[in-house]
Amino acid sequence: MNYKLRCMHCGKIYSPDEVKYTCPVCGNRLGTLEVLYDELPNEKKFDLEHKGMWAFSKFLPVKADHFEVPLLVGNTPVYEKVELAHELGLSNLYVKDDGRNPTASYKDRASALAIAKAKELGISTIYCASTGNAASSLSGLTAASKMKSVIFVPKSAPAAKITQLLVYGATVIAVDGSYDEAFDLSMEVGEEFGWYCRNSAVNPYLLEGKKTGAMEAAFQLNWKVPDVAMVSVGDGTVVSSIYKGFRDLKESGLIGKIPTIIGVQAEGANAVMKTFESGIFDEPNDMEAHSIADSIAVGKPRDVLKACKYVKASGGKFISVSDDEIGHAIVELARKTGIFAEPAGATTYAGLKKIKDELKGKSVILFITGNGLKDINSVKEFVAQPYVVRPNLKETKEALRDAGAI
Amino acid sequence: MNYKLRCMHCGKIYSPDEVKYTCPVCGNRLGTLEVLYDELPNEKKFDLEHKGMWAFSKFLPVKADHFEVPLLVGNTPVYEKVELAHELGLSNLYVKDDGRNPTASYKDRASALAIAKAKELGISTIYCASTGNAASSLSGLTAASKMKSVIFVPKSAPAAKITQLLVYGATVIAVDGSYDEAFDLSMEVGEEFGWYCRNSAVNPYLLEGKKTGAMEAAFQLNWKVPDVAMVSVGDGTVVSSIYKGFRDLKESGLIGKIPTIIGVQAEGANAVMKTFESGIFDEPNDMEAHSIADSIAVGKPRDVLKACKYVKASGGKFISVSDDEIGHAIVELARKTGIFAEPAGATTYAGLKKIKDELKGKSVILFITGNGLKDINSVKEFVAQPYVVRPNLKETKEALRDAGAI
Repeated sequence: MNYKLRCMHCGKIYSPDEVKYTCPVCGNRLGTLEVLYDELPNEKKFDLEHKGMWAFSKFLPVKADHFEVPLLVGNTPVYEKVELAHELGLSNLYVKDDGRNPTASYKDRASALAIAKAKELGISTIYCASTGNAASSLSGLTAASKMKSVIFVPKSAPAAKITQLLVYGATVIAVDGSYDEAFDLSMEVGEEFGWYCRNSAVNPYLLEGKKTGAMEAAFQLNWKVPDVAMVSVGDGTVVSSIYKGFRDLKESGLIGKIPTIIGVQAEGANAVMKTFESGIFDEPNDMEAHSIADSIAVGKPRDVLKACKYVKASGGKFISVSDDEIGHAIVELARKTGIFAEPAGATTYAGLKKIKDELKGKSVILFITGNGLKDINSVKEFVAQPYVVRPNLKETKEALRDAGAI
Repeated sequence: MNYKLRCMHCGKIYSPDEVKYTCPVCGNRLGTLEVLYDELPNEKKFDLEHKGMWAFSKFLPVKADHFEVPLLVGNTPVYEKVELAHELGLSNLYVKDDGRNPTASYKDRASALAIAKAKELGISTIYCASTGNAASSLSGLTAASKMKSVIFVPKSAPAAKITQLLVYGATVIAVDGSYDEAFDLSMEVGEEFGWYCRNSAVNPYLLEGKKTGAMEAAFQLNWKVPDVAMVSVGDGTVVSSIYKGFRDLKESGLIGKIPTIIGVQAEGANAVMKTFESGIFDEPNDMEAHSIADSIAVGKPRDVLKACKYVKASGGKFISVSDDEIGHAIVELARKTGIFAEPAGATTYAGLKKIKDELKGKSVILFITGNGLKDINSVKEFVAQPYVVRPNLKETKEALRDAGAI
């Protein structure tokens, strides 16, 4: 696909050869770029089962022979939840479970795109600064692709998260400093060695990979898109990608409308929401972030401008929910749908619960961005203890009676 | 589908109405039953993408209107790994990643079947004794199906595993005793309250659900089945199901041969292998089990007779590998394929490595039965530490040099 890049801040249009990642005038933070295609295809058949997200390759900024990641990324299920919809007063509810990607998160869609672009450029090492899903996704998919990954994390990152990266063979640099220092160091080192950058927002192509989540959903729903799409928000790239996926489909004529996009943040990390509500999108309201939803506990969101502009264009908004609401949402979502989401994934459901009255009568799709197995510990305090019995029928019956099971 | 049940020990044939779970003459341990269909269909089209394992419903002992579990079970990817095959001296290698099921293990196939059977019988509570994948699978899938689950675990089971069950809303009975005591108690309580039993081996239908893994693989490989199929073995049900899936397909005329089945056990829990090698299949060699591969750390395998008979019929055998080999296999498999398997899943790859010379020139399929996110801690000792640096270019370069990344 032929495409151009437009700065989200100054609006200047570049050809792909002119710029690497961001607008040279507006810089890394505000000068994020969006990918604009010269022409969007209008075809209706997509082989999700065999190709996953690459079924949409004609909507992606890659050359056909570069996009082979030998793992099936995407083709995640979307479930219709009629009963739960009615319980919440909605006309219908769809849940897309992206925890079923190869490394169990939405981020695989971006990593796959990064690998395709790096191959196109003949670069075999890809780096990122992340403690979470972006890092595990990049390390897993580069391993499958016989490429190298270098991951910069703050030294304080949880050992279990780092273990997964090391299993995949990533080179992990634990920086004795903050996440922001790890981020800046990664950019400096990546630049010096000419590695490919998989830092969200900075690299405009990652969003293009992520948008396939929205496109898949539209295809799976036979192009009848819901009124509202909800997703959790940290850096702002995923929520932007949901909008972009629907916008590209609308431009291509495959769908008739773009859903209203509602981004859900954790209360302790709602910098995008604050910026959106200020109305001045190019003056980010950074903060110190705290939330159990570590995948979206971002204080300095890198894609804030795009997220605000796109969500506004959709007629949507940002809301935020407390950690307590997130914890209970994990449990309720699991019990009502069988989908065990990581805290950031269930944040979306917590948001839906919070504003269900506003959404009365509407159809809604929730994007669940990661699997709960990634972070079992954070949910412990939201469930009761098991019933302990000695191995005899009498004690067991008492326990079962207490539990309401008999 | 119409079917009968045959005792694996005495060979007596029962109609489904005559018996509940096992042969009344031969008991729970040896009197396990196999499902024999009056007729197997010969159709070649299967809608995996929308139906998952239920695409094979005509090969299953359920009535069409009972099998709706509202989660996509099965339709897991099978990858061709030509390069790795050649590295190991094989003609080809396929890897089926069943860690991509709804609750991230092969066991979802059995739980889905149990739910369908329970619905058929009008029973709304299903129980099992398990600390691992069977339990999380049952609790997740019953939650999605608006049914109840009661899970019996030994009190010593790891808290993280129990948390997942509680999140899904299962009633968890922690028995102050051994796994065997929890198992016996579950059978007693389940019988008393008329709940449906999801204990492996005892319930012959679970294996029928599991066999869909083999059938999917055969379909995905366009009915050209590999020479050898390998899978890890604990109770013996999964390995039996692989054989049964291929056998049913052969009987239906869809495939020309049944692969040689090789079951891989952990050295500290190789009771099935010992029984197989003794040649006397109805005298189980029980033992005290120890392995990092907790999903297959079984000392008293409940499906030993079937596993031995089926594997023998395929011309295969059982082998075992050390915990050390399993740990290294997790890492190597992740780095070479991008698939992060739980220890029991990677046991299969460790087995392949061990006997690769015997398999020279053959095509092999590995069934990976669970996702590595289920048990991050066990792999920690098999990877190095990250490189700790202060946020400056000089220290980072030194670390990258040490790591061989530059």
